[in-house]
Amino acid sequence: MPMKNTTIPSAPARGPADHEVRDQIVAAATEHFSRYGYDKTTVSDLAKAIGFSKAYIYKFFESKQAIGEMICGNCLHEIESEVRAAVADTDLPPEKLRRMFKVFTDASLRLFFRDRKLYDIAASAATENWQAVQAYEARVQKLLQEVLQEGRQSGDFERKTPLDETATAIYLVLRPYLNPLLLQYNRDTTDVAPAQLSSLVLRSLSP
Amino acid sequence: MPMKNTTIPSAPARGPADHEVRDQIVAAATEHFSRYGYDKTTVSDLAKAIGFSKAYIYKFFESKQAIGEMICGNCLHEIESEVRAAVADTDLPPEKLRRMFKVFTDASLRLFFRDRKLYDIAASAATENWQAVQAYEARVQKLLQEVLQEGRQSGDFERKTPLDETATAIYLVLRPYLNPLLLQYNRDTTDVAPAQLSSLVLRSLSP
Repeated sequence: MPMKNTTIPSAPARGPADHEVRDQIVAAATEHFSRYGYDKTTVSDLAKAIGFSKAYIYKFFESKQAIGEMICGNCLHEIESEVRAAVADTDLPPEKLRRMFKVFTDASLRLFFRDRKLYDIAASAATENWQAVQAYEARVQKLLQEVLQEGRQSGDFERKTPLDETATAIYLVLRPYLNPLLLQYNRDTTDVAPAQLSSLVLRSLSP
Repeated sequence: MPMKNTTIPSAPARGPADHEVRDQIVAAATEHFSRYGYDKTTVSDLAKAIGFSKAYIYKFFESKQAIGEMICGNCLHEIESEVRAAVADTDLPPEKLRRMFKVFTDASLRLFFRDRKLYDIAASAATENWQAVQAYEARVQKLLQEVLQEGRQSGDFERKTPLDETATAIYLVLRPYLNPLLLQYNRDTTDVAPAQLSSLVLRSLSP
């Protein structure tokens, strides 16, 4: 179907687009929270720091938690991207599984505890089971299922146990290394645990 | 060898034996901590509640932590006894392993979170890695090794993987359900996790 030769009306004179303001608020909030902590910062503090009015911030986010959710979501996406890249980088399902354990642990440790002091937000998110966390956990479980499915097709993994059962159990083994609340108390085992646990899991999957 | 017919000298007039006083202090402290919390109670509070002088308590325990260690030790021994009884009650190594997962989880949940509000003490113990906790963890690992060894001898479990490696990995799987700090964040999974995880572990052990 041929495109009509229409004239695109120029946008009316206005400020930055909504998504730009949202990004600006999130960037400033990330900076502010990582310096002063999420729990201790109010929307008023944030407004003052950015130079916006509190009311203006509330036009874009209904609460501090909504800003936190966005930051948390970004952080979880970053972890997930690293894992997906590592998993995509090999064709062997057993190696994919090993990398899931290793990279989830390393990236979670780095993002939750070192790089940005975002632990406060991650902890609130996990404690209150924010939507961003639920979505993340669902995506991780789906990725795990895909890797298991691939390994069943390639003949690397056994097929007797229902896929759901296998996936749920392995997720329970992995969870203490990607949930920030659990990870904080597992930090003394993170150098060896991913390798030992993925070896155990691979033994459980042998055909 | 015939016993000599000696006259046992009567004990000099004195108060209750040391171990009786210690038990009395521990019993009163358990009661007091479970009502007011371990963190919030000082040795002075405790002395007042028992009706002893603070100095008298310090004759028997060098610190509040020393009393807490004794209470914590009792609690961990109780959990361990339940597990050992359940394990001893079957001859089948796979069933022993299942029971370890189930009974450690149930008994820890009950003792740390319900019966006595001893969570405060258990949490301090785990955070500060008290001697009572270290000893407990070592005993749990030893019990696990014994069950694995039995299963290897009976032919139920594979023998290719070094015993140490198997035991360490399984302990890592079990740990989130017996460490009180981890268990508090696993409470939404404790109804199904022990069965699912022990099934996974048993698959990993199949010869």
